[in-house]
Amino acid sequence: MLYQKEEPILNGQSSCAENFRCAFSPATFDLSAQVAIEKISELLRREKIEGVTLEQPEDLMSEARGLMTAHSGSDAPFDPERFSKIIDLYFRTSIKVGSTGYMARQFSSVFPVAAVFDMITAISPQPASFYEAGQLANVADKIIAEEFARRIGWDPDTCDMITTSGGSLANLTAVLAARNDRLYASWKTGVTRRNGTPAIAVGDDIHYSVCRVPGIIGIGQDNIIRLPLNDRRQICVRRAIPILREALAEGKDIFCLVISAGTTPVGAIDPLEELADFAEEHGIWLHVDAAHCGAFLLSERLRPRLRGIERADSFCIDAHKTLFVPALCTLLFYRDRAKARGAFSQEASYVFDHHENSMTRFESGAKNFECTKRPAILNLWLIWAMFGPQVIAQKLEYLVDLTWDAYSYLSSLPDFATVHEPEANILCFEYKPKGLDSIQISELQLALRDAIRDGGRFFISKVEIEGRNVLRIVMMNHEIEMDHIAALIFEIRSRAAEIMKSWEVRALDATMVAQ
Amino acid sequence: MLYQKEEPILNGQSSCAENFRCAFSPATFDLSAQVAIEKISELLRREKIEGVTLEQPEDLMSEARGLMTAHSGSDAPFDPERFSKIIDLYFRTSIKVGSTGYMARQFSSVFPVAAVFDMITAISPQPASFYEAGQLANVADKIIAEEFARRIGWDPDTCDMITTSGGSLANLTAVLAARNDRLYASWKTGVTRRNGTPAIAVGDDIHYSVCRVPGIIGIGQDNIIRLPLNDRRQICVRRAIPILREALAEGKDIFCLVISAGTTPVGAIDPLEELADFAEEHGIWLHVDAAHCGAFLLSERLRPRLRGIERADSFCIDAHKTLFVPALCTLLFYRDRAKARGAFSQEASYVFDHHENSMTRFESGAKNFECTKRPAILNLWLIWAMFGPQVIAQKLEYLVDLTWDAYSYLSSLPDFATVHEPEANILCFEYKPKGLDSIQISELQLALRDAIRDGGRFFISKVEIEGRNVLRIVMMNHEIEMDHIAALIFEIRSRAAEIMKSWEVRALDATMVAQ
Repeated sequence: MLYQKEEPILNGQSSCAENFRCAFSPATFDLSAQVAIEKISELLRREKIEGVTLEQPEDLMSEARGLMTAHSGSDAPFDPERFSKIIDLYFRTSIKVGSTGYMARQFSSVFPVAAVFDMITAISPQPASFYEAGQLANVADKIIAEEFARRIGWDPDTCDMITTSGGSLANLTAVLAARNDRLYASWKTGVTRRNGTPAIAVGDDIHYSVCRVPGIIGIGQDNIIRLPLNDRRQICVRRAIPILREALAEGKDIFCLVISAGTTPVGAIDPLEELADFAEEHGIWLHVDAAHCGAFLLSERLRPRLRGIERADSFCIDAHKTLFVPALCTLLFYRDRAKARGAFSQEASYVFDHHENSMTRFESGAKNFECTKRPAILNLWLIWAMFGPQVIAQKLEYLVDLTWDAYSYLSSLPDFATVHEPEANILCFEYKPKGLDSIQISELQLALRDAIRDGGRFFISKVEIEGRNVLRIVMMNHEIEMDHIAALIFEIRSRAAEIMKSWEVRALDATMVAQ
Repeated sequence: MLYQKEEPILNGQSSCAENFRCAFSPATFDLSAQVAIEKISELLRREKIEGVTLEQPEDLMSEARGLMTAHSGSDAPFDPERFSKIIDLYFRTSIKVGSTGYMARQFSSVFPVAAVFDMITAISPQPASFYEAGQLANVADKIIAEEFARRIGWDPDTCDMITTSGGSLANLTAVLAARNDRLYASWKTGVTRRNGTPAIAVGDDIHYSVCRVPGIIGIGQDNIIRLPLNDRRQICVRRAIPILREALAEGKDIFCLVISAGTTPVGAIDPLEELADFAEEHGIWLHVDAAHCGAFLLSERLRPRLRGIERADSFCIDAHKTLFVPALCTLLFYRDRAKARGAFSQEASYVFDHHENSMTRFESGAKNFECTKRPAILNLWLIWAMFGPQVIAQKLEYLVDLTWDAYSYLSSLPDFATVHEPEANILCFEYKPKGLDSIQISELQLALRDAIRDGGRFFISKVEIEGRNVLRIVMMNHEIEMDHIAALIFEIRSRAAEIMKSWEVRALDATMVAQ
């Protein structure tokens, strides 16, 4: 007496049913995959000095709409031409991470095999918060955690690592764990007070996502204590300690200190040891936003720059930045495993079994924010398995060396000034031709950033350092050599000459109008 | 006088340099992509009645470690065999979303072309929070927002939509916007009070991520007001309203009401209209977690089930659930565009330009949590462009019809009991053979879930409903037909017979021991 469906959706003869079948069919996969592979293969071999092509949103929107053809019955169900055009449009409007002219941001090209694996995890999803649904991802978490524990100097049996979707989420999670640990019952009753107004201290160049955290978790932005920087743009311990002591004395209950290993503007690594001393002395949770430089742990040569990180209560690494795997993949480490469960805390019968068993003990769901989570850790494990972690270390070392060389070179030029000694692969500098005052110099950098970007060969960024604009390059592409830096310098000088000429014309026009 | 690198990393002759070159080479992409495509093509065509194969974590870990061979100089740099084995291991331990035996969770197989596009966005990242870095993604956000606005009945010029990484993050973001709007200055000073203790009301079956929100944002879990459900497992308005009124009278300042369109346990849609009336009357922000059922907006036939959602202040849809694109891709809608900027609020010179221009006006960074964000919206836009939204609607309608048919059929069987009338594609039921008491029935469902899973042909889930275990099926695969439901029923009856037999033996043994 089984109910029979009259017309299963896949069996109809209409063009509509045909379109539906096509949308899900293995043949569409085969065909679209071949198109994509050709396009990617071309991209990876492309002549590689190009910047970014910025288009006006309205123009781009109308082009995108043009690709959204209405589907009439007469259309071929899967149109490889249109798919090909969509890929072209995507690549055309992308930042060119494979170009040797790309020096603007902390996004890298990824290991190609990891991008391929992203297609595997997309077609066969393993939501990784739960062992039942994401077995291999939960196992890979443990393997990668152990690999890092050894390099940090932590006992793999008592520390913990969870994978989460981005540095912002890792920082939020860690500060929540800190809040729930130090301000007892905050999770249950709302933010509680121990002996003062709860506050968080951060370095002045901390990532903006960390500055959002007190706003999010009910502490309030007013209760961020910003610590001053030294001329390397690290937290200046000499000046920071008195500020921290004063804040404590004035009734600020600093329960968490968030510092950086690799600030976004310049890549500075805060003095980890000295700040760990202070945190320890005052029972403050120390979290290190090592999104950018935590990857140095993989290099024998670079690891010493992170000395002291083993004393942090927690720290994170963006694997999609400096471990060169697809976004989003952030590793959040806890020195004390028991604290990892403090960030969130509750149950749901359909997801968390009441009784831990050999399987649920392995899963991360109770410790990470996401319910559905990509098994992104597998991309990292894959690189480890296929090539070994040394390929990551080699790339990092090359990029850091290259940045140092660029720094040395720029420092030797009379018309350039470097802003800091680089500790990582980020370098800030100014182009300072003679005869301009400091306001004009700052304006020039901004104009240069835009002119260079619009020129389409190089793509660099700018940041504000103490109220003035400076240029910023981030070395993320290991195919960049000093010749490319030299070419950039040539470009900067030429563009600057053009910009200053246009200023003179403008000034002359203004004078003539005034006369 | 340009500094010359002695030995660029790509030019060395050592096996180490060879391994490095191989890890990044286009040839490795070509080779690994071909391996992956063959594997996926096989997977998509595989005989499709299979459940999940659960392995002990320790066994799986040692197998995974076995694939992490140390790389000696003599190794072939890229080993397609090993890559192939890794893919096999991944598929073997995956939930089989393409199997007609898969009925356990809300994860779906995705449109194959979207999975292919995930490889494109992985190889050429477009961090989508910023227009400069993710032009097409920010434009696609606007296009998709307009498509939905039309279907919601909102003015596309005054509403807003942002893409974010998961339903949990969308719910957090919306409730933060609510808190910052209703509890003025909470962002700046920490949670403020208007006229009572800030509180959030939710339906009793709300997703666990929503229950975490008060814990996270400083309101406290004690200040969640849980609303009772009717026998369809929707919020029971008749009983909920007095509870809400009483809470208000007792000094709870309910600033946000979070309800569901598609609860996780049973897929229930709360009475949107009536709850919108109450929220409006009391100035309460209404957020609808429509992660699961918001997709009904795309179907003429199913859309009426969401009547009232246009009165919500905000709601979200998990595109990686019921729009069938890869995770994580959640759409968060705001009725009033101005409120979308309220969730987070600050600046960072290296990311947010001080002055809005035609480009930055398009970008989402100030409104979404992530700094680095996958351009996941493009997968959805791609489906729209290639096949039109009707393929999504057709699949949804099929799944909802199938679930209703399964419900009708199970209701007609003497040894089964359905728990609710399904409103979506989720159905809960019990197998109730004669002669068992209610505790035994509940134990039987749990044992059945495990036995069926371990049998390896079907994969279903269980939830707790009012303290008892019930079985749960989620129809996410449009290749499932009523024959598969019939086969599941057969499986349930056989497994139950085995389980009850083992209980009898155990009881007999116990009796004999006692004698």
